[in-house]
Amino acid sequence: MASRPLPLVTQDQTMHPYRTHSCAALRASDAGQTARLSGWVHSKRDHGGLLFIDLRDHFGMTQIVIPAGSPVLEAVERVRVESVLTITGEVVLRDAATKNPNLPTGEIELRAQQVDIQSSADVLPFQVAGHEHYPEDLRLTYRYIDLRRDKVHRNMMLRAQVIASLRRRMTDQGFVEFQTPILTASSPEGARDFLVPARMHPGKFYALPQAPQQFKQLAMVAGFDRYFQIAPCFRDEAARADRSPGEFYQLDFEMAFATQEDVFATLEPVMEGVFREFGGGRTVSAAPFERIPYATAMKLYGSDKPDLRNPLLLSDVTESFANSGFGLFARIVADGGEVRAIPAPGAGDRPRAFYDKLNAWAREAGAGGLGYIIFDEEGGKGPIAKNLEPARVAAIREATGLKAGDAVFFAAGKGDEVVKFSGLVRTRIATELDLIEQDSFRFCWITDFPMYERNEETGQIDFSHNPFSMPQGGLEALNGQDPLTITAYQYDIVCNGVELSSGAIRNHRPDVMIRAFELAGYPASEVEARFGGMLNAFRYGAPPHGGSAPGVDRIVMLLADEPNIREVILFPLNQQGEDLMMGAPAPVPAERLKELSLALNLPRPKPGVKAGE
Amino acid sequence: MASRPLPLVTQDQTMHPYRTHSCAALRASDAGQTARLSGWVHSKRDHGGLLFIDLRDHFGMTQIVIPAGSPVLEAVERVRVESVLTITGEVVLRDAATKNPNLPTGEIELRAQQVDIQSSADVLPFQVAGHEHYPEDLRLTYRYIDLRRDKVHRNMMLRAQVIASLRRRMTDQGFVEFQTPILTASSPEGARDFLVPARMHPGKFYALPQAPQQFKQLAMVAGFDRYFQIAPCFRDEAARADRSPGEFYQLDFEMAFATQEDVFATLEPVMEGVFREFGGGRTVSAAPFERIPYATAMKLYGSDKPDLRNPLLLSDVTESFANSGFGLFARIVADGGEVRAIPAPGAGDRPRAFYDKLNAWAREAGAGGLGYIIFDEEGGKGPIAKNLEPARVAAIREATGLKAGDAVFFAAGKGDEVVKFSGLVRTRIATELDLIEQDSFRFCWITDFPMYERNEETGQIDFSHNPFSMPQGGLEALNGQDPLTITAYQYDIVCNGVELSSGAIRNHRPDVMIRAFELAGYPASEVEARFGGMLNAFRYGAPPHGGSAPGVDRIVMLLADEPNIREVILFPLNQQGEDLMMGAPAPVPAERLKELSLALNLPRPKPGVKAGE
Repeated sequence: MASRPLPLVTQDQTMHPYRTHSCAALRASDAGQTARLSGWVHSKRDHGGLLFIDLRDHFGMTQIVIPAGSPVLEAVERVRVESVLTITGEVVLRDAATKNPNLPTGEIELRAQQVDIQSSADVLPFQVAGHEHYPEDLRLTYRYIDLRRDKVHRNMMLRAQVIASLRRRMTDQGFVEFQTPILTASSPEGARDFLVPARMHPGKFYALPQAPQQFKQLAMVAGFDRYFQIAPCFRDEAARADRSPGEFYQLDFEMAFATQEDVFATLEPVMEGVFREFGGGRTVSAAPFERIPYATAMKLYGSDKPDLRNPLLLSDVTESFANSGFGLFARIVADGGEVRAIPAPGAGDRPRAFYDKLNAWAREAGAGGLGYIIFDEEGGKGPIAKNLEPARVAAIREATGLKAGDAVFFAAGKGDEVVKFSGLVRTRIATELDLIEQDSFRFCWITDFPMYERNEETGQIDFSHNPFSMPQGGLEALNGQDPLTITAYQYDIVCNGVELSSGAIRNHRPDVMIRAFELAGYPASEVEARFGGMLNAFRYGAPPHGGSAPGVDRIVMLLADEPNIREVILFPLNQQGEDLMMGAPAPVPAERLKELSLALNLPRPKPGVKAGE
Repeated sequence: MASRPLPLVTQDQTMHPYRTHSCAALRASDAGQTARLSGWVHSKRDHGGLLFIDLRDHFGMTQIVIPAGSPVLEAVERVRVESVLTITGEVVLRDAATKNPNLPTGEIELRAQQVDIQSSADVLPFQVAGHEHYPEDLRLTYRYIDLRRDKVHRNMMLRAQVIASLRRRMTDQGFVEFQTPILTASSPEGARDFLVPARMHPGKFYALPQAPQQFKQLAMVAGFDRYFQIAPCFRDEAARADRSPGEFYQLDFEMAFATQEDVFATLEPVMEGVFREFGGGRTVSAAPFERIPYATAMKLYGSDKPDLRNPLLLSDVTESFANSGFGLFARIVADGGEVRAIPAPGAGDRPRAFYDKLNAWAREAGAGGLGYIIFDEEGGKGPIAKNLEPARVAAIREATGLKAGDAVFFAAGKGDEVVKFSGLVRTRIATELDLIEQDSFRFCWITDFPMYERNEETGQIDFSHNPFSMPQGGLEALNGQDPLTITAYQYDIVCNGVELSSGAIRNHRPDVMIRAFELAGYPASEVEARFGGMLNAFRYGAPPHGGSAPGVDRIVMLLADEPNIREVILFPLNQQGEDLMMGAPAPVPAERLKELSLALNLPRPKPGVKAGE
């Protein structure tokens, strides 16, 4: 906990009724003074008639001694841990032998003369002291107790400090924070909105924003130059480890008259700065972060969110298998597939079980298996090498830059599937070989996302990602270029393989937007009907603009090294979207529903389950 | 608009595609340079072949000149005002005669060499330049245009700066900002919640928080010492001028181990500081603010939110009318009523019409009329003085401290009614006599609110205000004192007659809370059933705590001198709770309702109106 001094309000002359110091404040130099502390009983120990209490508050801990025979002893003996006490007494130096160098207050103790019980604790559902694990639902039901535990308490303070730092860094760059509406209209973002019945407008509903995307763009149209917000966002989606089922926060920002490089140059120092400030000495990428075009990312990492802590790079070895002696891959290549090589440096001396385990893992992941070659001084070993011409084995070794004692794995197949699988193998191999760089945050931008893709089922041209991004080359590209070759000013920022945010330079030109949708098969009339609000706004003078919106919860998760998002949220919903502490969601009285012009329309009980059973 | 320099991102060597400077940046010292600006066409003027444009961005305005015969002239002539242009050209000193000392860039103009049209504006629904008034619904429909207008733009910047300042001031005092849940449970605050159907829990609903009251108290129970939040709050209530129909923001804060004086000493420098920072030189009360017990406020001001800019003080002159010659008031007094005097210094020379107008106003306000005495050198004049014994007239003059040339008005009646009416008269008289201090912000605390009051209808004891405040004297007072004499540690902060917030030292003791509710007629079982969540939390060790939550929108309204809350909100709902720009609320597809296990249950058409008509 922070040891920052408590900014105490002094009451003229008389002692404050609750405290003169925080529980982290007293030092050897205070010995002899009378002090008053308030806090929670972290622990109690009886040492031969003396009673010791560790009194804890937000700031720290102080040892209290209640001498044998003290008139207050009996009262204190009766209170349980986590009771709240106010203790007045004399600050006393500890014996050299009992000093605690691990505690900032470890040189002293407070000899209690007066004890006021502010709050007596019942028997706790779980312990605050110590590091025992408890079921998450129990912790969330009593979150106000759980939050007293050291690690959770520190996570929340980290979160608050990270957010304050993000704010400061954005403000320092001339960004202005605005609050955008929470009761608003359904947005075209694609995820499911939460709806809010509008009592005064029977049959109508507000929606909670999935993101303030349209509002931040309208703020640019309104002439505000640089907007940001620590913005609450709402999606009615199932929970995942890294996603809350209800609400989450993002550092939402947008800039007018900005290029993609301007957006990067804005966010980079914010991210680098925050990760350096709170990274506890871990290595952080220096700005400018690496920019990796989408196509390159897929080629080298098999992923559009590559973990750059992983040093392995993929290569394309399709040619080495074309018409080769290794029939399985030769057939895949002949059929239009490709073969990608995943290097495994130093894996040559691993036992056969290592390769078998990886093969089994690949089959579980849905692949046919995981072929490999082990390089030695003579050439290659293993089932593939047996069938592959030595010159081809040598060519692969050259292409992958491997040497004797290394191995290489192969992913073979078609299109996206083999690309993604090669990315999974890359992660897996690096993990198995312990190659992932520790204690570092590696940032990169993925750029130049394709604007369109061919829908495998219908054969038609679809938008790949965000239809509202500006196509590179603008109207000319849309009119003159093969749509599948058009890229967008769209980008992701990635840290350690975690996508923190998408972003884009937006399409602020109605003519370009209508043409872009036309290529994806939407007639102008439909675009006007569905997105008329934004289109109209752009018709009254819109600046070029762009931005991004890194996820705050994810940033804190990375910094706190917590894979579970609920560990960095003060009062989170559980994975079922329930607030176990407050009892939400809950049924509402019939009159409330009537007032909202609604009736329940509950799903029928499942077949075989009778009512009342 | 702010003239703060634009933190430009420089692109190595080449000129930025949109701007090298903001529209507020260029000065005489830049003459001769090539510059590029982007902004909105604020106005266009044709001066004998030369075309002048005022180019506006967030930061300011720069005059652009397009020389006669320029190749770019034709393109620019065609664009309408509010189109967005990028203009590259030479910075040129203006002639002494054409310099504009009112504009920071008024010494120069930009002679256009290249013009890029970023966005062509259609004919606008209303003008950005100038100060014409437009209907609010039109403005809100095109809010993104409305927000470009000078006053609205400045209001939004003021709001953002006020909020940033509030944050900084709270952080500097050791407060930590947390985000509390927005999807939560119904709260016992009393107003109507917005409900959110929980798709995964058929028949159940989340509620949006009316305030984070319970969460901030639980944060204290969780051991966080000083919490604050610029907190979104939601109430499904009708709009008023000073209240949005949906959401509003408050500076929500809470402190552990704090007395009422600690809360005051915390908030006072924040309020004083913010009002001095943004008050534009207006006078601001110096901390500590006046503390006025509720009973005194009702007595002296006839209101629990007195406007201290009004110098008038009420006095009780009941005794002067008891058994007096002025029968009407004598009867009221005999009947248990009281008479309150409202001084009107200097009103003695006002014509009869002044008094008649006030009398008519009083009747409209539901009073019987507004009696008065005009003091002169001889004694009193007017209908009341005619019937009142001269000694009594003299006593009233003495009690009110008035002199010849002044007048006094009277409110007579029973209990609350006469108190409130006397408060209205006080405001009215001071306004009529132009006695309200101008250009000042006068703060006060109203303290010692009664814990209970007698319900006039049932004769029973009810809670006066907040049942969760700590009663002064605690359990002893509850057990030993007439409930109607018990006050609570509850307080309001008032500025210029506007209540910015209630606040309280909370009742953190389950035993005290159960007893407090018992006095108001609630058995323990009901308290447990209704408020069990909080009660249970207090059973695991709760610190004494308290706080307040000044309304952010109201603070900004006071500073911006805007009586309409929508003038200080970026994208407000209109008075009917509609977002005219985004089209909310709106009907939702039947499948969405089904997914939420809901059906519409619309009110029947009114009698006499057939469907389809």
